[in-house]
Amino acid sequence: MGVKIILGHGSGGRMTRELVRDVFCRHLGDVGPESLDDGAVLDCGAGFLACSRAEGQTGKSAPQLVFTTDSYVVSPLEFPGGDIGTLAVCGTVNDLAVMGARPLWLSLGVILEAGLEIQTLERIVKSIAEKAREAGVKIVCGDTKVVEKGKGDGIFINTAGIGVLEKPMRPETIKPGDKIIVSGTVGDHGMALLTLRKGFPLKSNLKSDCAPLNEMILQVLGKVDVKWMRDPTRGGLATALNELTEGQPWGVLLEEDGIPLSEAVCGVSELLGLDPLYSANEGKAIFVVPAGSAENTLKILKKTSCGQNSAVIGTVSGDFPGKTVLHTQMGTLRTLGILASDPLPRIC
Amino acid sequence: MGVKIILGHGSGGRMTRELVRDVFCRHLGDVGPESLDDGAVLDCGAGFLACSRAEGQTGKSAPQLVFTTDSYVVSPLEFPGGDIGTLAVCGTVNDLAVMGARPLWLSLGVILEAGLEIQTLERIVKSIAEKAREAGVKIVCGDTKVVEKGKGDGIFINTAGIGVLEKPMRPETIKPGDKIIVSGTVGDHGMALLTLRKGFPLKSNLKSDCAPLNEMILQVLGKVDVKWMRDPTRGGLATALNELTEGQPWGVLLEEDGIPLSEAVCGVSELLGLDPLYSANEGKAIFVVPAGSAENTLKILKKTSCGQNSAVIGTVSGDFPGKTVLHTQMGTLRTLGILASDPLPRIC
Repeated sequence: MGVKIILGHGSGGRMTRELVRDVFCRHLGDVGPESLDDGAVLDCGAGFLACSRAEGQTGKSAPQLVFTTDSYVVSPLEFPGGDIGTLAVCGTVNDLAVMGARPLWLSLGVILEAGLEIQTLERIVKSIAEKAREAGVKIVCGDTKVVEKGKGDGIFINTAGIGVLEKPMRPETIKPGDKIIVSGTVGDHGMALLTLRKGFPLKSNLKSDCAPLNEMILQVLGKVDVKWMRDPTRGGLATALNELTEGQPWGVLLEEDGIPLSEAVCGVSELLGLDPLYSANEGKAIFVVPAGSAENTLKILKKTSCGQNSAVIGTVSGDFPGKTVLHTQMGTLRTLGILASDPLPRIC
Repeated sequence: MGVKIILGHGSGGRMTRELVRDVFCRHLGDVGPESLDDGAVLDCGAGFLACSRAEGQTGKSAPQLVFTTDSYVVSPLEFPGGDIGTLAVCGTVNDLAVMGARPLWLSLGVILEAGLEIQTLERIVKSIAEKAREAGVKIVCGDTKVVEKGKGDGIFINTAGIGVLEKPMRPETIKPGDKIIVSGTVGDHGMALLTLRKGFPLKSNLKSDCAPLNEMILQVLGKVDVKWMRDPTRGGLATALNELTEGQPWGVLLEEDGIPLSEAVCGVSELLGLDPLYSANEGKAIFVVPAGSAENTLKILKKTSCGQNSAVIGTVSGDFPGKTVLHTQMGTLRTLGILASDPLPRIC
């Protein structure tokens, strides 16, 4: 018997990265990407010059596309603040947006389990339409498959997205002194799902933060020289920042008392002993900006509906190379490692 | 209790079309496509003019992209002639190719069931790499999710694909007298899967025809004024031609004795009483060309590795408006309707 897939391979943390590296990237080789976790910037100039008969195109003037994909397997299908359809639009729109792209088009592939109520499917499709309208994107192509009862789980959705690159991220320009900003309270989506799944009575204000962030992000990009963005989904804020700092000559120092947390998330976290910094978000972005731009970034964010609770939460620091470190409210320093395996599978 | 999803909704035939129309297209409305079954032609000119800061672009000179998506849920995962990875590349490459596009980039979203052997996954990823290399496309982005044992079936794959439109199809120019050409024997994929699933001893030469067709198709497009193409997958040749003829003032008259069938497919079809014209293909294309180009098209096809058994199988006819009719070897005329529900679910 060989080694088998376990739930931890889907955590979005270390095991996922190892699987992607050791199985996908290794075997795909020259026809694969550097990493399977992120979107790709496609140089249409090169593609079109080599492949199309269109005339008058030059590599220099041709715009760049960003292409990304995500499958959604969240359980349960519907939860406070959204459903799997909401997630499938927001997740892919946000993946494009944090790469500096303007999302334009989505594909929609669904795998239905026999026995799913058509009414449930209709509610989910309505959520897809609502969020697509909110984000200003079109669902341009789709595919429907059905599997036997017991071979799926209601509905799985894949959305791939295409956007036009507006402003490429430049993580190579990050240096000590740059500021880390988050666009609102952290951990809401993960804690809402956890509470629902464990059967705790739901506090009325504990719900997923699922939202399309492209308009908010484009407003910031228009005025601030953003160096890096990320939507901290699976694995939360801590895992996203670990991906940023790993292997760098600098690190990130977070101030615990600056990190926005809703009262509800605070309460559930303490009750269950779970860390909201590792809990998934579906409507938050992290920004790295020059120190001198932090105030302006906050000002822009706070005027948007999704960014009202945004805050500066830390600083890029030369003192902790390669690490994400939390300056706790008790005054100690705690290194935040990458999530190894999610305590809560199928969160998105 | 409401109406529920059943396996027939995934057949690719009438029930799939009704589900797509009544649930997806209806609720997506203004943010959705006309049809969820096909790829979309994206007018980059319009998109870029409206959305990007690139200069020097005009709607006229900007190339058009084609975007498509397919999920693959085939069971079993591995079969004579390929595996789910082979299918996931060929299926999406072929969807782009029959729209007149040159496939360039694929995304790769996988949903793994806990318990899947990593070795099985590795074989599948190797197939993906092999077929991507053969088709000349790159896997540029990806995503990995894991579901609990009993909530999936080994592995489901979604590939979305982007291509550059080389030559748009023009079904509106089709007229009586045009010829119908198929690029080889029909029904191989479906019959191979059926035989495997039903546990019949496999004849050595009964295997899936799974192959990327983009090079073959581009050779034809370079020299022939092709009016319409389609890869007859789920629902087979008869369903694909029904989609073409439905609502048209003309129909298609197929000559049964002209349709290429392998000996193995013939034998199994007779044994099981199943019609190979409704059996899935994964490495075949149908072409509609002007009568005067038929001979040249065949000549080009027969020089390619995938098109050696290509044949003229019928004619567009004014006598059967909206219908696909088979002139049988016994001399009778038989109307081929659209597949209602597949006798063999999860064929791709």
